[in-house]
Amino acid sequence: MTVHNDHQTLLDETVRAIRPPDATATAAAFARHDQLTKPRGSLGRLELLGVQLAGIQRQTIPEIREPLVVVAAGDHGVTAEGVSAYPQEVTGQMLMNFLGGGAAINVLANAAGARLVLLDAGSRSEIEEQPGLRVRRVRPGTRNFALEPAMTRAEALAAIAFGIEVATEEAARGVDLLAVGEMGIGNTTAASAIVAALTGRPATQVTGHGTGVDDAAWQHKCKVITAALDLHALDRDDPLGVLSAVGGFEIATLAGVIIGGAAAGVAVLLDGFITGAAALAAHRLAPAVRPYLIAAHRSVEPGHQVVLESLTLDPLLDLGLRLGEGSGAALAIPIVRAAAQILAEMATFESASVSRSET
Amino acid sequence: MTVHNDHQTLLDETVRAIRPPDATATAAAFARHDQLTKPRGSLGRLELLGVQLAGIQRQTIPEIREPLVVVAAGDHGVTAEGVSAYPQEVTGQMLMNFLGGGAAINVLANAAGARLVLLDAGSRSEIEEQPGLRVRRVRPGTRNFALEPAMTRAEALAAIAFGIEVATEEAARGVDLLAVGEMGIGNTTAASAIVAALTGRPATQVTGHGTGVDDAAWQHKCKVITAALDLHALDRDDPLGVLSAVGGFEIATLAGVIIGGAAAGVAVLLDGFITGAAALAAHRLAPAVRPYLIAAHRSVEPGHQVVLESLTLDPLLDLGLRLGEGSGAALAIPIVRAAAQILAEMATFESASVSRSET
Repeated sequence: MTVHNDHQTLLDETVRAIRPPDATATAAAFARHDQLTKPRGSLGRLELLGVQLAGIQRQTIPEIREPLVVVAAGDHGVTAEGVSAYPQEVTGQMLMNFLGGGAAINVLANAAGARLVLLDAGSRSEIEEQPGLRVRRVRPGTRNFALEPAMTRAEALAAIAFGIEVATEEAARGVDLLAVGEMGIGNTTAASAIVAALTGRPATQVTGHGTGVDDAAWQHKCKVITAALDLHALDRDDPLGVLSAVGGFEIATLAGVIIGGAAAGVAVLLDGFITGAAALAAHRLAPAVRPYLIAAHRSVEPGHQVVLESLTLDPLLDLGLRLGEGSGAALAIPIVRAAAQILAEMATFESASVSRSET
Repeated sequence: MTVHNDHQTLLDETVRAIRPPDATATAAAFARHDQLTKPRGSLGRLELLGVQLAGIQRQTIPEIREPLVVVAAGDHGVTAEGVSAYPQEVTGQMLMNFLGGGAAINVLANAAGARLVLLDAGSRSEIEEQPGLRVRRVRPGTRNFALEPAMTRAEALAAIAFGIEVATEEAARGVDLLAVGEMGIGNTTAASAIVAALTGRPATQVTGHGTGVDDAAWQHKCKVITAALDLHALDRDDPLGVLSAVGGFEIATLAGVIIGGAAAGVAVLLDGFITGAAALAAHRLAPAVRPYLIAAHRSVEPGHQVVLESLTLDPLLDLGLRLGEGSGAALAIPIVRAAAQILAEMATFESASVSRSET
């Protein structure tokens, strides 16, 4: 694939296009909540979520009618270091499973009434573009970041641009919620390295057991990450440098989806740890994305907690999930939709002739 | 309304009809989870929930096709003590709001694809039975339990019987999930008194601010409850005595719905504090209900935490809700449904040709 110089320009322009949420709509949604037939604040975070959506959508009564689950896939050269319990072929096998409708994310996206689109920005599979799968393989997997940078800056920018383009197009088609997920054997290692590099935490604090490594393998994983952080001498104020050196194509693509979604005025529902690492990188590239983010769930990966604290995000669900694929994000879609529906469909005290509190 | 002696018989027979969940289906659902294309246990509590449903429904692949939200309403004589921020008329006004479709529970039940049925077991309103509202007013509100028992034992039994009958009928119609909620001005005071009496905790540990009382009102509420606990000299091993003395018609009805649901082999999704108090009473009357219970959310009411610990329930959601009406239960229905769908719809490693973990 050709890497265009204008990917940097696209990123710069998209970052500049992100507006703060609309203060008038935010205030109006707050005020509307106090008119609805329930005690003030009694729906807790559901009310705050509705208000956030109102600001993002720049209308007092937000609506979630076209949620889209975007799952980005990529392969990771660092799997050569033995950091995953699964062989690398599983990335492509799972892409086929997604296309066949048999994965957890298919079931959960269907259950949530959401369309699913897969983005292959750099897997080693050779599956062709088809309905439900957009392919822009920058490279068949990243290089092994234990030895050399995972991607060049131009490659990382190409993946980011892919994500921006998809988010922009989907928003133009009417998508009003982007729920993001990922698939990529080895990508918890990349995510841990990104989070360590961007927050200054040691590898041991941001590294977990992924989808199934034991304690000895966990220690090895930490060593690989620590060594890579030394090798690449990363600058935490250079998020693109960090993404390139130790990231992944799916993570860079998701950073692009997040930035593109925010620029298009669409709320972004984050899944777990890997999408969190993408959001952290996106936030460093474009701090204005923050008000557009919703954390769907708290992953059992320890690095996710670091991400959530760093972005001051409080997840909607805490169900011990560690699957990825966007599974937690899909599971939270009905809650996000309900937050909008409460503002849209509830009666007011006046319209329903219900007495208010005496206090 | 006539109180029949056979309400005690109905309760006794229903309690005896509750079976333990099916061990074979439970084991088969566990085993099936390990065949599905995801790392073992990676869907966390969603997997355990699916296994619980399998045991309850006595089939490896459970299904949630007919969820029903049951909201029981009742009025409380103890409101004469000034324990609520809302006038007692609001119970009836909110029943009208439910029937008009404008309350939070209408929006959330619709959003979850669930039917809603209201049970009036003892409000002061005079709304007639109609589609969506079943009326069996044992009495127009309880007596003021600061002065005398809220209900006679026969009245409490009549409300329990109402709940059993509704659960039995709805299960026979195909309902496969009972999400329970309540409405009743003053009912957090009754719930706190029940939980204090059944657990031996002091009123201050199980009393909250309800839907909107301030600190002085909270202290008054605690005093009213403490005095009532002294007045009635309650025996924690006599759950019917506790329910009668300090409970409410909607709480007794919900205890009946829970017992009736369990006896009919239907999972019961509990809302917050008041339904939790009903579940605690139901559990004391019929310990076998426990495996049928799912806690939808963690309420901000402090007494709810005591209930959850006492029943060893870990809620699915923690969103700062304190509305009642079944709002948290309705919000959790999509998660319960998804837990069943995962078992039903995901591909197996074999069917999808996906490699398993190397470890």
